[in-house]
Amino acid sequence: MTYRTPLQDLIFSLRLAAGREAFDAGGVHADIAGGLAEQTLEEAAKFAEGQLLPLDRIGDRVGSRFTEGAVATPPGWRDAYDQWRAGGWNAIAADPAHGGMGLPALLNAACTEIWNATNIAFALCPLLSHGGIEALESHASDALKATYLARIVSGEWTATMNLTEPQAGSDLALLRTRAERNADGSYRISGQKIFITYGEHDLANNILHLVLARLPDAPPGVKGISLFLAPKFLPDDAGAFTRRNALRCAGIEHKLGIHGSPTCTMIYEDATGFLIGEENNGLACMFTMMNNARLSVGVQGVALAERATQAALAYARERRQGRAPGASDTSAIVEHPDVARMLLTMASLTAAARAICFETAASIDRARRETDPARAMEADERAGLLTPVAKAFSTDIGNEATSLAVQVYGGMGYIEETGVAQLMRDARICAIYEGTNGIQAIDLAGRKLAMSGGAAVRREIADMRAIAAESDYAALAEAVEALAQASVFMAKAMKEAPAQGLAGATPYLRLFALARGGTLLEKGARLACRENDPNAARYETLSHFFAKNIAVAAPGLARMVMEGAASVTEARSVLVG
Amino acid sequence: MTYRTPLQDLIFSLRLAAGREAFDAGGVHADIAGGLAEQTLEEAAKFAEGQLLPLDRIGDRVGSRFTEGAVATPPGWRDAYDQWRAGGWNAIAADPAHGGMGLPALLNAACTEIWNATNIAFALCPLLSHGGIEALESHASDALKATYLARIVSGEWTATMNLTEPQAGSDLALLRTRAERNADGSYRISGQKIFITYGEHDLANNILHLVLARLPDAPPGVKGISLFLAPKFLPDDAGAFTRRNALRCAGIEHKLGIHGSPTCTMIYEDATGFLIGEENNGLACMFTMMNNARLSVGVQGVALAERATQAALAYARERRQGRAPGASDTSAIVEHPDVARMLLTMASLTAAARAICFETAASIDRARRETDPARAMEADERAGLLTPVAKAFSTDIGNEATSLAVQVYGGMGYIEETGVAQLMRDARICAIYEGTNGIQAIDLAGRKLAMSGGAAVRREIADMRAIAAESDYAALAEAVEALAQASVFMAKAMKEAPAQGLAGATPYLRLFALARGGTLLEKGARLACRENDPNAARYETLSHFFAKNIAVAAPGLARMVMEGAASVTEARSVLVG
Repeated sequence: MTYRTPLQDLIFSLRLAAGREAFDAGGVHADIAGGLAEQTLEEAAKFAEGQLLPLDRIGDRVGSRFTEGAVATPPGWRDAYDQWRAGGWNAIAADPAHGGMGLPALLNAACTEIWNATNIAFALCPLLSHGGIEALESHASDALKATYLARIVSGEWTATMNLTEPQAGSDLALLRTRAERNADGSYRISGQKIFITYGEHDLANNILHLVLARLPDAPPGVKGISLFLAPKFLPDDAGAFTRRNALRCAGIEHKLGIHGSPTCTMIYEDATGFLIGEENNGLACMFTMMNNARLSVGVQGVALAERATQAALAYARERRQGRAPGASDTSAIVEHPDVARMLLTMASLTAAARAICFETAASIDRARRETDPARAMEADERAGLLTPVAKAFSTDIGNEATSLAVQVYGGMGYIEETGVAQLMRDARICAIYEGTNGIQAIDLAGRKLAMSGGAAVRREIADMRAIAAESDYAALAEAVEALAQASVFMAKAMKEAPAQGLAGATPYLRLFALARGGTLLEKGARLACRENDPNAARYETLSHFFAKNIAVAAPGLARMVMEGAASVTEARSVLVG
Repeated sequence: MTYRTPLQDLIFSLRLAAGREAFDAGGVHADIAGGLAEQTLEEAAKFAEGQLLPLDRIGDRVGSRFTEGAVATPPGWRDAYDQWRAGGWNAIAADPAHGGMGLPALLNAACTEIWNATNIAFALCPLLSHGGIEALESHASDALKATYLARIVSGEWTATMNLTEPQAGSDLALLRTRAERNADGSYRISGQKIFITYGEHDLANNILHLVLARLPDAPPGVKGISLFLAPKFLPDDAGAFTRRNALRCAGIEHKLGIHGSPTCTMIYEDATGFLIGEENNGLACMFTMMNNARLSVGVQGVALAERATQAALAYARERRQGRAPGASDTSAIVEHPDVARMLLTMASLTAAARAICFETAASIDRARRETDPARAMEADERAGLLTPVAKAFSTDIGNEATSLAVQVYGGMGYIEETGVAQLMRDARICAIYEGTNGIQAIDLAGRKLAMSGGAAVRREIADMRAIAAESDYAALAEAVEALAQASVFMAKAMKEAPAQGLAGATPYLRLFALARGGTLLEKGARLACRENDPNAARYETLSHFFAKNIAVAAPGLARMVMEGAASVTEARSVLVG
């Protein structure tokens, strides 16, 4: 199964999201102009294709193994992680004050796609560390930063997110892990956490657990949650990290996919922890990790969709069956219109999801880097608005594209040896973790639509409208108008009849993504055409296909939101039984 | 994970498909009236829940094992198969002339759902035998029938379908397996077949391979294919089946799912075979097996969708997270509108697909049993028209529903222990085997729309229109009109611009299924209401939900067919590379 990093597409997508002027001197993304983005991605591709891709299958086959509290990652993974650190890849997005390279979220998103396309189970480890870095950078005391931050940034140590408990998944208000104050300002943490990605492993010498727990006098619910740092090894008197903390891995899960990534049950028994941020303010700190991770998980969906599309396309060009219309002999199956439809669906969904993810990343950069406070605030709202769409849509299409790859392969796709089934199994987690896609839809329909009295979504729709107005494809304008109507309905429903609003949240998010994705593809196609980009014809083809075959679902989705939601809420008695 | 056979729904669906009058004395389905259908299904449920369901997980975990040419099925399977035979379940649909019970295809479809919902990997073995029975009944010589038929009907021996070769999957014209004439009227078969379900196993003492092969003087392509019966054991001089034929299993596949079902590579080295039907007429004989199997595979999709829906509903009633709108405390997740939407999507898609499959089965019965030749011919055409829809739509929604079940379970769904991931893995094959769903769409759009100059599809649409006209849901009438328009377009395109017709075949099939499924649910809801059926409110709820949330996709699908197909055919240069 082939995978080649789509360097030209990634660079083009970066430039589309950054905007032409932003790449210029003084622009928000000036630091990656002048060839740096290109060089970085070329090096990333070389590393990922050379080191990570060859370990992807063995990761699936052997998996991580649990023995007496320890986790052995698959053969070759520790070496690859050493090279990952040595190459400086762990540090690209972190603050230079702690050894990072300070590169923009946008470039990091492109690199994240490369890591995950070649080996998602491996890439999860640094993905989690990155969330830990952001939480510490934003909320930790100077003392904690000084002790821990540089060593996560370098990759010497890794970080985890400890949120979920058996009774508390989507609903963190239910979490029970306790934290009690020690005299020295530290805390004692006790409880059980489940589904902890890379909670234990042999890639690094220390693991820093970011743990949500509840103080004895905390208010109930999510307002009584605090965030703690509980390292696997604590410093001894000499300052060496040799003292084992009272926390351990009790086992790992047998999962549908991402077998190389150990999913741990973690037990805390009066483990020493250090407060991050204020007491009872853990949810805000957690969202710092989470928002970053949500975008990265969206990028995972794009990554697997890209890899699946490449695999299916290569197979379809090779495999010969039947005669395509007009052919005089057996044709490659890519020539069969029905197979072509599957491949175009995969390719155009991937491109649309990538455009949305990169647009989100560029907005994060603008929020951080714009000197004008009003523009920074608008960019921050835009990142907030797009993040749930980037996460949910990209991971939904990750499922769709990997399943379509199995279909293009036919019987060979159902055989594990060909590797496409693994892509489908691996991809399936992405719509679930870091907030299920249903949670993303509720976040979009609720909190995000209400930002600044609806101004953020109105700005976004105005931008889509401007692109659609110049397009030859009427389906794009119809999709944007369907979104505009559904947005008005949804904002009202969430206030006046929240059950109906919530019932329409998932089709509303899909509708949003079709309108946004379709208009971004069209914007890209026009840019490529103006600039005589060598891929302009392909971008035009994908935009055309998307408008006529994917975006046309928009009016039906708007009806589901506006007319169908009532049938959900009326069905209560049938479901509750 | 729970599964209870949905007896009331099955019985109701049988009656809906049979029609009220047809259940009466003298009607086509009179033989299952008067309680026989109910009794049969109750016994089937008892057997399947008691014997097959407990073996489903061990089948997945242990799988069938290959050692030196032999295949050991999972622990307990051989006993279950013995009981299956002893219970007479293998014989229900076969001709009484050969020991069958001669029950209608409609009742067999309901039983097939039960077998596959409890253990699809087990149920595949008799599913394949059933195809073999139909091929022998329709095409074999009296001598072959006398020797073999009763022993497959009883289940003492099993049958297989040997079609696929490495270079010949969807395209049977490419097959290379050779057959040469022996002096005694038998043939010598040589070649390699792959993906042979239950090609070797330990459930029965003989395995009858139905093998497609090519005679030395056969015309090229599909007109040069003949069908042979090649038993694993041949009769010795005393008539006992002790002589090993020159055929063997060379290995079994490591698959994404259906691990209990051995998928074999079969090697024929001058194996003795007996011609079924005429020389070079193998394709017609093969389609006798295949059409039956296509409907049964559709039913497999329904079966796994039903099981997934039950599992998700049970979990959603149990699992408590967050507060639903208006709730004062933590709610069961079934109360959350977004989860309710997933469950209603699963339940209504399952009901619609079941209605289409049963309608297909009832049409097969009418084609065989109607005494009026014109009505029998119309019924035969109807079965032909609906079969690809039943196969492809049901298996597509099998994938959708099982994936949604994983989503409802959240992180627990991704863990193999809960069993829902297995349903998703098992279901994935159904859209691929017995003709991929793309092949089904092409069959519908090509051969089936053209039957009797389009009269068959016009009759079907007229029936849908009559139901939609009496419905309160405008979306149903819109779906039917969208189908009507797309059908006219498609019939014309397949003649005048086949590439465009073929490019729209998959969305056309989905559109057909939404219109047909939605109108059948509505017909059922109205029947249940008139008859004060205890489930009338639930049927009404599902019909309402389907119309407002699923059928509303129809106009968008019609646009994909009529406006989007061109964008597929124009994309050739981008895909071919």
